[in-house]
Amino acid sequence: MIDTPHIKALTEIVGVENIYTDKAHLIAYSYDATRNRFEPDAVLFPRDEKDVSEILRYCDKNGIIIVPRGAGSGFTGGSLSIKGGIILAFEKHMNKILEIDMDNMVAVVQPGVINMELQKAAEMRGLFYPPDPASEEHSTIGGNVSENAGGMRAAKYGITKDYVMALRAVLPNGDIIRAGKRTIKDVAGYNIAGILIASEGTLAAITEITLKLIAKPKFTKTALGVFPSVRHAMSAVYKTFAKGITPVAMEFLDNLSIRAVEERFHKGLPKDAGAILIADVDGDEPTLLDEQILKISEVFKENGCNDFKTAKNEDEAKDLWFARRNCSQSITIYGSKKLNEDITVPRSKLPQLLEEIEQIAKKYDVLIPCFGHTGDGNVHTNVMVDGSNKEQLDIGHKAIEEIFKIAIDLGGTLSGEHGIGISKAPFMHLAFNEAEMGLFRAIKKTFDPNNILNPYKMGI
Amino acid sequence: MIDTPHIKALTEIVGVENIYTDKAHLIAYSYDATRNRFEPDAVLFPRDEKDVSEILRYCDKNGIIIVPRGAGSGFTGGSLSIKGGIILAFEKHMNKILEIDMDNMVAVVQPGVINMELQKAAEMRGLFYPPDPASEEHSTIGGNVSENAGGMRAAKYGITKDYVMALRAVLPNGDIIRAGKRTIKDVAGYNIAGILIASEGTLAAITEITLKLIAKPKFTKTALGVFPSVRHAMSAVYKTFAKGITPVAMEFLDNLSIRAVEERFHKGLPKDAGAILIADVDGDEPTLLDEQILKISEVFKENGCNDFKTAKNEDEAKDLWFARRNCSQSITIYGSKKLNEDITVPRSKLPQLLEEIEQIAKKYDVLIPCFGHTGDGNVHTNVMVDGSNKEQLDIGHKAIEEIFKIAIDLGGTLSGEHGIGISKAPFMHLAFNEAEMGLFRAIKKTFDPNNILNPYKMGI
Repeated sequence: MIDTPHIKALTEIVGVENIYTDKAHLIAYSYDATRNRFEPDAVLFPRDEKDVSEILRYCDKNGIIIVPRGAGSGFTGGSLSIKGGIILAFEKHMNKILEIDMDNMVAVVQPGVINMELQKAAEMRGLFYPPDPASEEHSTIGGNVSENAGGMRAAKYGITKDYVMALRAVLPNGDIIRAGKRTIKDVAGYNIAGILIASEGTLAAITEITLKLIAKPKFTKTALGVFPSVRHAMSAVYKTFAKGITPVAMEFLDNLSIRAVEERFHKGLPKDAGAILIADVDGDEPTLLDEQILKISEVFKENGCNDFKTAKNEDEAKDLWFARRNCSQSITIYGSKKLNEDITVPRSKLPQLLEEIEQIAKKYDVLIPCFGHTGDGNVHTNVMVDGSNKEQLDIGHKAIEEIFKIAIDLGGTLSGEHGIGISKAPFMHLAFNEAEMGLFRAIKKTFDPNNILNPYKMGI
Repeated sequence: MIDTPHIKALTEIVGVENIYTDKAHLIAYSYDATRNRFEPDAVLFPRDEKDVSEILRYCDKNGIIIVPRGAGSGFTGGSLSIKGGIILAFEKHMNKILEIDMDNMVAVVQPGVINMELQKAAEMRGLFYPPDPASEEHSTIGGNVSENAGGMRAAKYGITKDYVMALRAVLPNGDIIRAGKRTIKDVAGYNIAGILIASEGTLAAITEITLKLIAKPKFTKTALGVFPSVRHAMSAVYKTFAKGITPVAMEFLDNLSIRAVEERFHKGLPKDAGAILIADVDGDEPTLLDEQILKISEVFKENGCNDFKTAKNEDEAKDLWFARRNCSQSITIYGSKKLNEDITVPRSKLPQLLEEIEQIAKKYDVLIPCFGHTGDGNVHTNVMVDGSNKEQLDIGHKAIEEIFKIAIDLGGTLSGEHGIGISKAPFMHLAFNEAEMGLFRAIKKTFDPNNILNPYKMGI
């Protein structure tokens, strides 16, 4: 609990209208998408970078924990203040698109800007901001940068880090730093922007983000393939890319996921199929897209695809995407609690990964529907359990630990896009040796010697 | 001077055939492309990562300076050991392409692999490694990663950092770390690979590099435009990109550069032109490339281009590229010493940058031929002086400092691709504030508390 004089001092910095300390608001800021709950002592809404600097300097001097927060849509607890302290919320004031620089194809935004708002602002000008996490309607660019968010289009367009050109940030001691430039190339000094991306708000509070925009591709085409087994589908995924075709997205549903969507929505999906793949290609030349779709159909058929559909228009494309868009909510038919992870492996390891997950499901007698962004090797594995049954939860967690181990053994990662936060912190030792963990701790200490900024995260 | 017992101990690690201490070899390893000369006390050729680890651990314990070196082709002294110590040379043993993984489109290489060897190995398999620094025939991937090398194709394909998926490296204390994965997405832990890239060998010795490869585009087309002035040409550069056209390269020569090439090679170049732009576009569909060339010609003409040529075949393309390929060596007609910098600004600032450089040339009464990778805002500015005349050299250095200031004022950087090393270290204060420099120093100390690994570089 923060002492009253501290609250008073912090109130003086931001003004009484920009601090919450009442119970109702503290509860509102105690959640994220993990459904964990940790109440902070206060929520502050900085008006500008200077406020952020003064707040951090004060907290640093007085050993007060402070946790930056965008929309609180994270899946791993990155924006939760697990031991009280202050939530630093960017949504109220620091939520502006400051500039869209058409000459250099660059956007400059504050951390609280919602991803989709930036996408729309870019599109209005014929430009394109590709990173599209599933939370795009409400997650913020600050959060996206802090977690290095991915999305559907990562297979072709990469992820948030591929678009960050420069950052402004405040160090825990209140110092304001700039990192990177509005240039494609900049090799002066250490790549501070590079290490702030994906650091989950543990190293500095990001106050301004300069992002690369690209030209909006003019056309998109969509195709869907039905496969007899997951192994067939996963082979088709990596062989498509290895043929030199780069779909924007190559998304996957397994049989359990297909059946769940069909049960809820009765769309006539192939309930007996082992897997479905949905692919988008885009570009400026329709004939080139037709060629790519043709090549995809060839690779799919060589890998056992027994039904291949293409969309003739936008409505049909939406139809092909329906199952993928609705599978996350649908699979809850298998259990009240979904232990959802986002492991990622090299694409060629997908067949083996999915087979081993099937073995784990059998071993623990649980259902593990899988779907996800297989175009970039990212599989959302969902261990379904009865959330009110402690024994089942324990079994679920054991199954998840085995899934993590397999992903790591296959050269993959604990997290493709959700981050580590608190949810995956216990598994960091599976992925990193003592020297690597020691380096993480040393870096944290370098930026934040008093451990005030989003502490107790990432297992460090 | 390193004591004999140390030399003996290091010899025991690598074997007598893998250490040089004789004068002739020490001189051979005392240079890089800056033509500065600093003799090391010994040159070691590690056979593998274990050797690197043992060498670093020994040096760390005994306070011996050690400097990793690839081909020594750097332009800023990054691989020079300016206060004696050991050169850690990767060229002899750790120079293998370990794997080209066709399924995942990934190459795994040791640091001593020459850039062009990797490009060729990828091309033989229909794949493409885009980063192509001018030193591609001899510079190594380890050096490219350490300096974050750019090249001609950066405007479309980005730079070295955009292709590094994972690294193995040895910390100064001998600990071996892995950073990143063979996956498009990986957000577990801090982005250590991100901070090792461009760290100029000051934080860790990189021992293995995993690189993204892409599909080789099937066709390339080349065009050349002649402009009445640099301002016209620079406007054409940024307006081309802003129209949504992304040439692979958009290279530039000013009037002095054109005249220098013409004087040496008599190719019938337009000696009275203010500037030339040479553009390559590439892709898989020739009609799309024709469209892009057409659009480029439109933008060029709107911006004063009075002669526009396209190449009908590879020989003609080579011809259009001739002036650009040969301008660096040709401009030496203007002075025995070329003070060559690689400032980079946001593309839209190129017209102003080049105009201000003209003013500086007048003010100091020096010739400053400029050429370079304007497609990514990178201009090679060459202050030409008589290298034997101290007064002229001083004037040249003053002119360069002013050029740096202007680049920074325009939102640009001291270095687009050459790094800081020792050459640009005196100018770091122009680009970074005390908090930023302090952070650089703290990061250096975190990785290398005893300051043994490539110390006294980057102004930190």
